[in-house]
Amino acid sequence: MAQPKGTVVLAYSGGLDTSCILVWLKEQGYDVIAYLANIGQKEDFEAARKKALALGAKKVYIEDVSREFVESFIWPAVQANALYEDRYLLGTALARPCIARGLVGIAQQERAAYIAHGATGKGNDQVRFELSCYALCPKIKVVAPWRLPEFYQRFPGRRELMDYAKKHGIPVPVTPQTPWSMDENLMHIRSGAPVPSNPHVQSSPLHIHCVPVKVTNTGDGATRSSALELFVYLNDIAGKHGVGRIDIVENRFVGMKSRGIYETPAGTILYHAHLDIEAFTMDREVRKIKQGLSLKFSELVYNGFWHSPECEFLRECIGRSQEPVVGTVRLSVFKGHVYILGRESPRSLYNEELVSMNVQGDYEPADATGFININSLRLKEYHRLQSKVTVKQDE
Amino acid sequence: MAQPKGTVVLAYSGGLDTSCILVWLKEQGYDVIAYLANIGQKEDFEAARKKALALGAKKVYIEDVSREFVESFIWPAVQANALYEDRYLLGTALARPCIARGLVGIAQQERAAYIAHGATGKGNDQVRFELSCYALCPKIKVVAPWRLPEFYQRFPGRRELMDYAKKHGIPVPVTPQTPWSMDENLMHIRSGAPVPSNPHVQSSPLHIHCVPVKVTNTGDGATRSSALELFVYLNDIAGKHGVGRIDIVENRFVGMKSRGIYETPAGTILYHAHLDIEAFTMDREVRKIKQGLSLKFSELVYNGFWHSPECEFLRECIGRSQEPVVGTVRLSVFKGHVYILGRESPRSLYNEELVSMNVQGDYEPADATGFININSLRLKEYHRLQSKVTVKQDE
Amino acid sequence: MAQPKGTVVLAYSGGLDTSCILVWLKEQGYDVIAYLANIGQKEDFEAARKKALALGAKKVYIEDVSREFVESFIWPAVQANALYEDRYLLGTALARPCIARGLVGIAQQERAAYIAHGATGKGNDQVRFELSCYALCPKIKVVAPWRLPEFYQRFPGRRELMDYAKKHGIPVPVTPQTPWSMDENLMHIRSGAPVPSNPHVQSSPLHIHCVPVKVTNTGDGATRSSALELFVYLNDIAGKHGVGRIDIVENRFVGMKSRGIYETPAGTILYHAHLDIEAFTMDREVRKIKQGLSLKFSELVYNGFWHSPECEFLRECIGRSQEPVVGTVRLSVFKGHVYILGRESPRSLYNEELVSMNVQGDYEPADATGFININSLRLKEYHRLQSKVTVKQDE
Amino acid sequence: MAQPKGTVVLAYSGGLDTSCILVWLKEQGYDVIAYLANIGQKEDFEAARKKALALGAKKVYIEDVSREFVESFIWPAVQANALYEDRYLLGTALARPCIARGLVGIAQQERAAYIAHGATGKGNDQVRFELSCYALCPKIKVVAPWRLPEFYQRFPGRRELMDYAKKHGIPVPVTPQTPWSMDENLMHIRSGAPVPSNPHVQSSPLHIHCVPVKVTNTGDGATRSSALELFVYLNDIAGKHGVGRIDIVENRFVGMKSRGIYETPAGTILYHAHLDIEAFTMDREVRKIKQGLSLKFSELVYNGFWHSPECEFLRECIGRSQEPVVGTVRLSVFKGHVYILGRESPRSLYNEELVSMNVQGDYEPADATGFININSLRLKEYHRLQSKVTVKQDE
Repeated sequence: MAQPKGTVVLAYSGGLDTSCILVWLKEQGYDVIAYLANIGQKEDFEAARKKALALGAKKVYIEDVSREFVESFIWPAVQANALYEDRYLLGTALARPCIARGLVGIAQQERAAYIAHGATGKGNDQVRFELSCYALCPKIKVVAPWRLPEFYQRFPGRRELMDYAKKHGIPVPVTPQTPWSMDENLMHIRSGAPVPSNPHVQSSPLHIHCVPVKVTNTGDGATRSSALELFVYLNDIAGKHGVGRIDIVENRFVGMKSRGIYETPAGTILYHAHLDIEAFTMDREVRKIKQGLSLKFSELVYNGFWHSPECEFLRECIGRSQEPVVGTVRLSVFKGHVYILGRESPRSLYNEELVSMNVQGDYEPADATGFININSLRLKEYHRLQSKVTVKQDE
Repeated sequence: MAQPKGTVVLAYSGGLDTSCILVWLKEQGYDVIAYLANIGQKEDFEAARKKALALGAKKVYIEDVSREFVESFIWPAVQANALYEDRYLLGTALARPCIARGLVGIAQQERAAYIAHGATGKGNDQVRFELSCYALCPKIKVVAPWRLPEFYQRFPGRRELMDYAKKHGIPVPVTPQTPWSMDENLMHIRSGAPVPSNPHVQSSPLHIHCVPVKVTNTGDGATRSSALELFVYLNDIAGKHGVGRIDIVENRFVGMKSRGIYETPAGTILYHAHLDIEAFTMDREVRKIKQGLSLKFSELVYNGFWHSPECEFLRECIGRSQEPVVGTVRLSVFKGHVYILGRESPRSLYNEELVSMNVQGDYEPADATGFININSLRLKEYHRLQSKVTVKQDE
Repeated sequence: MAQPKGTVVLAYSGGLDTSCILVWLKEQGYDVIAYLANIGQKEDFEAARKKALALGAKKVYIEDVSREFVESFIWPAVQANALYEDRYLLGTALARPCIARGLVGIAQQERAAYIAHGATGKGNDQVRFELSCYALCPKIKVVAPWRLPEFYQRFPGRRELMDYAKKHGIPVPVTPQTPWSMDENLMHIRSGAPVPSNPHVQSSPLHIHCVPVKVTNTGDGATRSSALELFVYLNDIAGKHGVGRIDIVENRFVGMKSRGIYETPAGTILYHAHLDIEAFTMDREVRKIKQGLSLKFSELVYNGFWHSPECEFLRECIGRSQEPVVGTVRLSVFKGHVYILGRESPRSLYNEELVSMNVQGDYEPADATGFININSLRLKEYHRLQSKVTVKQDE
Repeated sequence: MAQPKGTVVLAYSGGLDTSCILVWLKEQGYDVIAYLANIGQKEDFEAARKKALALGAKKVYIEDVSREFVESFIWPAVQANALYEDRYLLGTALARPCIARGLVGIAQQERAAYIAHGATGKGNDQVRFELSCYALCPKIKVVAPWRLPEFYQRFPGRRELMDYAKKHGIPVPVTPQTPWSMDENLMHIRSGAPVPSNPHVQSSPLHIHCVPVKVTNTGDGATRSSALELFVYLNDIAGKHGVGRIDIVENRFVGMKSRGIYETPAGTILYHAHLDIEAFTMDREVRKIKQGLSLKFSELVYNGFWHSPECEFLRECIGRSQEPVVGTVRLSVFKGHVYILGRESPRSLYNEELVSMNVQGDYEPADATGFININSLRLKEYHRLQSKVTVKQDE
């Protein structure tokens, strides 16, 4: 056994990797506290607890942060219409700072000097975990075994890891786990269910009051109105329909491209619903500014900067923009797709009379002439000069 | 009859409105040349020609600009991944500057001092037509009857217009035309077909070489490789599947919100396919800059500034970014949705070995530690100061 | 005399133009209430009051809004480091919405249906006045004589205006007033004083606590700490040194380029001082986001959108970013230029130890290696591909 | 002596640090080739060559890249109006990729596997050197002694370095060199000369044709028209006047704030001159887009990404925007400041007649009414809704 090194709080998933890491950390001389955050993944948490204790964890914390995850991490992303590189709804990226906050909390409570995680050395999650930890507790030290030569040279492949597991009594999964094993959470599921061949169309009014507040299934009258229940319900419904599955190539923060296959049913519905009610209630120019902020927000979240001054600043700005975003969107999910059927809002800026082609209202069509003429002034001047230049060049 | 006023080139659609406008312009003393651009709308062009002549048009020009529309207007939009307010693929907005170019060409050829159109006084199309006309030919004068009191007060509603039509022998449609009657074009269809209940999945590799160059239907081996044929084919296939239908509220340039129901099958496929191959081949940071340019491009196109120095500048910049965007995307359309199945490219920046979790390659995991540490420096400093400030405030 | 038309509140400056407009409005049948805002211009306000009454104004309101101008309009611009097109400090643009607010207040108080101003039909000020008025009171009607044919055709040049003035007993200035006559205000002076040949250097610590709060002249110990006094004092000192004079070509909102000669002494000092303390105390990435917001803010203010949802949104976001911007800048003004001599702040993010080349501190130089290597990963991949492509093309 | 390690090309400055590094590298077993780039610094290059050889350099390359530096690095920055964090003209940042290109060229020519430099582990220059090297030659290996424990622990302070220097016969400067010793170059001088008390005003027309092409001193008729001569001449003239000195706090890429004192005489003149002629000739909206690109460009250059796909892309886009930027700016430098006196251009978009208040020209003032009204539509709608909401809340 190695020299005692103090206490480490390990982000424990219950799976093969972090189980091996748990044992390995003990070998290195650490007292290991296992921290397992419930962020909505399908997991037998009590079994995981027993497993961690059996492997030698000094303590095991299992914390249900799923409500916090929805309210403090997913809701801001919904408000931002957050989308990384036009496609990715940031399911994994949102979970990391939530878990990191839990890790840091336990580390402070237990006066542990170290935090450890099982994220690999090429991925985004290591960055997301660690930037969050350092931002919340600058003096913490992170142990990332997959970046330590003594670890990754010992475990160059799955086989060595499984040998190690067997040797230390760590249950080895029958089917080899996918590399994405850590990623499941509320936002980011792994149903993989086939799109049903003959589904019922689900028509649901979804109420938004800055954040989603209620959903009703008009089919069976089911209603969900707490953040967590609403989100879980949408995941169920939309997951069955295969909504929100994508196969993309994305750009990691560390500079490489990687392929990602994601499934984000509730997130996809809420993306479309929020976009819709926002367009309905938000001033055009505020929207445009907010869109720029959201682009930046998405990039920051993806890159792991949730807990940063700039991301906090953006959340405040975006949050401020949401004050009028109130209303109800009617939508249906049908064979892999979300359809917006209509919307209504007490804060609607849509003015039926103003836009009508049969009613003039206060609108004076002659004004449009002036508007167009003034807008064309610059274009005419440009053309005038271009012609002069062209003529000169032709001479 | 009024005083002779000279020649006007009218953007003629063959429908009720522009037929009435044709007659009305003649009443005002204009010689009317009807111009009808074929941009892929379903129309009996020869019937329209006869109708215009019968109504008193001095000449009728019917110009097939559909290929030009695809190559010079739709392709740049595909390259830009152009999307207005996160949802609208700009089908109508792209057609206007294409038609306007035709109008101006005829006006110059015929030495006509005027151009007329049937766009309403509250919409975007008036702006798009006129900004294009003024940009291309600053001295042209535009007659927009729907903004002239003598016209719109005479025709306050559909009924008055239909009375006028009857009186002047203009055939009146049996079913009242929708307000969107002018909008159909290649990019922007009006199938409204129901999503088929039991469709065949269509799997197609789509080849992109800066612009779409070939599509093959793996089901029946059908291949299309000219721009126009490819686009029409995708419209057919995807239209049958109900791909690309949206119901949105959008912000018009003149400052009001309006509702739009659009159907853009080929455009939707190409949006997803191009996004995918671009992510695969374009450097991350180039992509981010280009994304900002595209956002601006979409806004400009929507607002009618296609023919402007800034839009031209953007097209050049975006075009320059497309040089590496080469490859093949395999996709399927299925019940209203496009699925990307995979992609390959000789210009791929995706490096399977680099990203692999089992092969280290040239990648040194320890570097990620330094990367994270340096990225956290700023966050730690910020936290350090915040703590000081908070402590002070607590004292 | 014309038909009575109701009451109009006129933005009155005391000068030739608005005096003529006052009389002309009466001729048209309006009851005219003159409104003269004191925003720091050099003016004999009592003389102006008498003049307006003598010309037939029903009432005259002279309102000292100079403090409000500094605190509610100039301070937000200082916080934004607002600069239009990289050079213009927006002196005139900031005053317009302030005056407009006063105009609307009087109009509402007096139940006047109209507001009138003397801004020309080609300029920015008409837009700034009117957008503010409409935003604050949508039902108000604006009378802009310089855009009415009956007015501008009657007064095609200065001579006709002066004839009219003479005829109606309006005192005519001996030296013809410059076209910029309306523009003077606190932010935007007209000293034109020569730069002194042998000035004393003025060294002044300037204290900022989100907004400027105190300035001390170390030469004579003079101190100013109310917003208005501080601003006036800086104008005096810096004005004597010719600080902040520029000769530029700018782009008007209506689409033409125009030449502007501006003098903004206090504004220039505060621009540099605020920039400096902000760089000292604000996180790098927050600053970058805020810089983008400020760019937009400057454009909006220039274009007249101060009173708009988007500008309000930006002011809130920018204001939020200013919380840590606290400290003291030492600076000197010397022969036309402001020099920053140093700065200090309790919220400084500048960490002397961290940056020192002689002390390592917590900084681990090896981390920089990892940081650079990871940052170069993408560049190496790009090069690798480029080489492949080039080789292929060469074959 | 250590094991032979192969050949390293050292970025040699002739100063204390890189001289010590040269000797130290030899101690480590490297064959050292010294590379000294002439980028305009005041240096006795032949003395430096002798010194390097005397210290054991296998070869010494002294390359005059000053013309290339101006034309390929400074000119693009002038075109961009490049300014980091609103103040820094990037003098040092521009030189690094120029030197790095030279280093890589020699390394490839000499088949050296290594490049070494004397930049410290906390600064920007290490990043700039290395990113450039890796981008241009991915397989190169960089030796950065100030980041190697065996080096920096041996030389924790200046004293140890000077002891080492004395021991190895390296001439030690009498006055201790400042930490900025490596930074001098054409763009970024170190005159420190006092501002003259009684200077002659220098009035100079400066001709720009996409890049600066000629300057004439109207005082003595002196003319310079090659890129390098023109730049050196402006440095002389403006340097004497103390133009372009700043004392700032800036944000380094590695995450810390640092203080910088810079003097950039020619760069400052060209910044103002180019800004002016650009505003005169470039369309407003093109300018706005280009301004956004320049902001990004400046950040990239500061952070060391000159040789990156995104920076290359930006240079191409910005370069494309410069086509109309042609003309002559008259300016004077006077006591630390540059004054723009006027400008003219065959490509001017300034239309004196259009902007005149006495000539209507083609401009129709009534159009401005429509323009304002349409622009106010959105503001009125917003107000209407706000009032409703407020009323409701008051109830």
